[in-house]
Amino acid sequence: MRTGDGRRIGINEVATRDGLQMEPRFVETDDKVALVDALSTLGYAKIEVTSFTSAQAIPALRDAEAVMQRIRRAPGVVYTALVPNVRGGERALECRTDEFNLVMSASETHNLANLRMTREQSFRQLREVIALAGRAGVPSNVSLSCVFGCPMEGEVPIEGVLGWIARFADAGAQGITLCDTTGMAYPTQVQALCAAALQRHPGLQLTAHFHDTRAMGLVNTIAAVEAGIVQLDMSLGGIGGCPYAPGASGNVATEDVVHMLECLGYCTGMALDGLIAAAGQLERLVGHALPAQVSRAGARLKRHAPPPDFEAIRERALARVAAAAGPVRR
Amino acid sequence: MRTGDGRRIGINEVATRDGLQMEPRFVETDDKVALVDALSTLGYAKIEVTSFTSAQAIPALRDAEAVMQRIRRAPGVVYTALVPNVRGGERALECRTDEFNLVMSASETHNLANLRMTREQSFRQLREVIALAGRAGVPSNVSLSCVFGCPMEGEVPIEGVLGWIARFADAGAQGITLCDTTGMAYPTQVQALCAAALQRHPGLQLTAHFHDTRAMGLVNTIAAVEAGIVQLDMSLGGIGGCPYAPGASGNVATEDVVHMLECLGYCTGMALDGLIAAAGQLERLVGHALPAQVSRAGARLKRHAPPPDFEAIRERALARVAAAAGPVRR
Repeated sequence: MRTGDGRRIGINEVATRDGLQMEPRFVETDDKVALVDALSTLGYAKIEVTSFTSAQAIPALRDAEAVMQRIRRAPGVVYTALVPNVRGGERALECRTDEFNLVMSASETHNLANLRMTREQSFRQLREVIALAGRAGVPSNVSLSCVFGCPMEGEVPIEGVLGWIARFADAGAQGITLCDTTGMAYPTQVQALCAAALQRHPGLQLTAHFHDTRAMGLVNTIAAVEAGIVQLDMSLGGIGGCPYAPGASGNVATEDVVHMLECLGYCTGMALDGLIAAAGQLERLVGHALPAQVSRAGARLKRHAPPPDFEAIRERALARVAAAAGPVRR
Repeated sequence: MRTGDGRRIGINEVATRDGLQMEPRFVETDDKVALVDALSTLGYAKIEVTSFTSAQAIPALRDAEAVMQRIRRAPGVVYTALVPNVRGGERALECRTDEFNLVMSASETHNLANLRMTREQSFRQLREVIALAGRAGVPSNVSLSCVFGCPMEGEVPIEGVLGWIARFADAGAQGITLCDTTGMAYPTQVQALCAAALQRHPGLQLTAHFHDTRAMGLVNTIAAVEAGIVQLDMSLGGIGGCPYAPGASGNVATEDVVHMLECLGYCTGMALDGLIAAAGQLERLVGHALPAQVSRAGARLKRHAPPPDFEAIRERALARVAAAAGPVRR
């Protein structure tokens, strides 16, 4: 494991889309806007604000237009949103979405189960969305699900994943996110896929997206960064579960990843105190504890006071030393 | 990050001591014995069975003698116990404890707050315990707390830690455990201390002991193993909290670490299915959910069934393909 030597890592926040979409309690539009506005001050490269899916499909994000129109945009931050199809793309363009995030699975079974299309059908649909975005001068990123394994198929061969990356690059996608949708990735596998994708597509913006379902989210993050990935998805508070592992945590938590990267000497440009405060804000909005650790424990050098009777403890201990030494030897 | 290439890593279980000592619900002696007996079949190098502290100090482990005498010992497993002083050492020897685990902090403030002695006082007391064990032909291991940081003092200088390791080695300790008591370690720091300790003391058995308080437990585990450590402490289910971070998780979870090491190609010799079953047994005994992830999610290639209407989904999708292709081109 190597030090970061100040290498810059871009941090993408997905809590407001990938996290909130699964929450049973509807977060009011005002609160969503206030949360995004708070996040905008913290140093993110990208914030995935919402999803232009149908209100029936994801009721938690039925206020996509309102949120996207009302947020205060900070210079330098890319405000992205999930776009499932051409209709969603038109809605996203009307709201001045900076980037489209498209989703498809590298696993045929997962794509059918999740999106009700074959991968070929998804690809053709997304190619139209990429073209629509391109005509408006808006870049598209494709989040490829299950690239490190499928909960139904098992292993997903690396060559198949690389094939989809190449097809989307040819179709005009500016970025690809390698998503470990259900937490099946492990570090050496992560390194192999990230290194191969970077090597074959030097012009593509590659992002890694890990889940902590099997406790390897941060380990895989380091593996990706050591392989050359400089853009990472993460979710404030670790919000966003995994339907295939009830009770297990989902997305890696922004405050945990940022804290680790800074310890290792990478430069995230993020304000950890502000992140912890925003995680508290998010926790109040969703109404339950979030799985992130650093929000609870604080940064590693956070000081705690000694016990209230510490001086008395020390005096008694030192008195025992004096008694043991005896009067003569003093 | 490197593959394990089949390198053998010895796994030490601490749930029955480090974990249970903090649990509010008393676990019955019969249940403790049954748990240790179950663990004994799973491939551990070492099991920390109990603590020979006073019943007043740790009521949860007041049945130390009974547990130690009644467990069925598996060949090859080292049954260790915490021994705080000479009286505890005499009790441990009466119960045929295979190894003494002694505890001292590398931080003066933490040692005073936790053990009510200066480090010098602790050292002199433990030196007597090591001598007692040595006369009985029993090895001693010293668990050095706070070697990667102290929640009250902050950074703990590496040279000070190396000094205590050298003094305990000179005093006859056969092993040293480098303990990240409150989750302050980070990977490059772990590598620096582990590498220095291994280099200076090639004859000492060095163990690493990490907490996941700031989500870096598994990352630090890899760092230690890559630095050459071949013996690791961990706790089934991740049981055992951290008093300085309420709500944060404590010890790294055995099933999570073993799963990760096996994914990376290390050989732990552990049976993961058995571990997950034993974690369920432990969860029922303590009466609350445990923080480990792999017990909930299963191993990475655990297969899930597609949705019940999967065939109908696929047929509808394929029908759309056929319709789009049209009759002429078929």
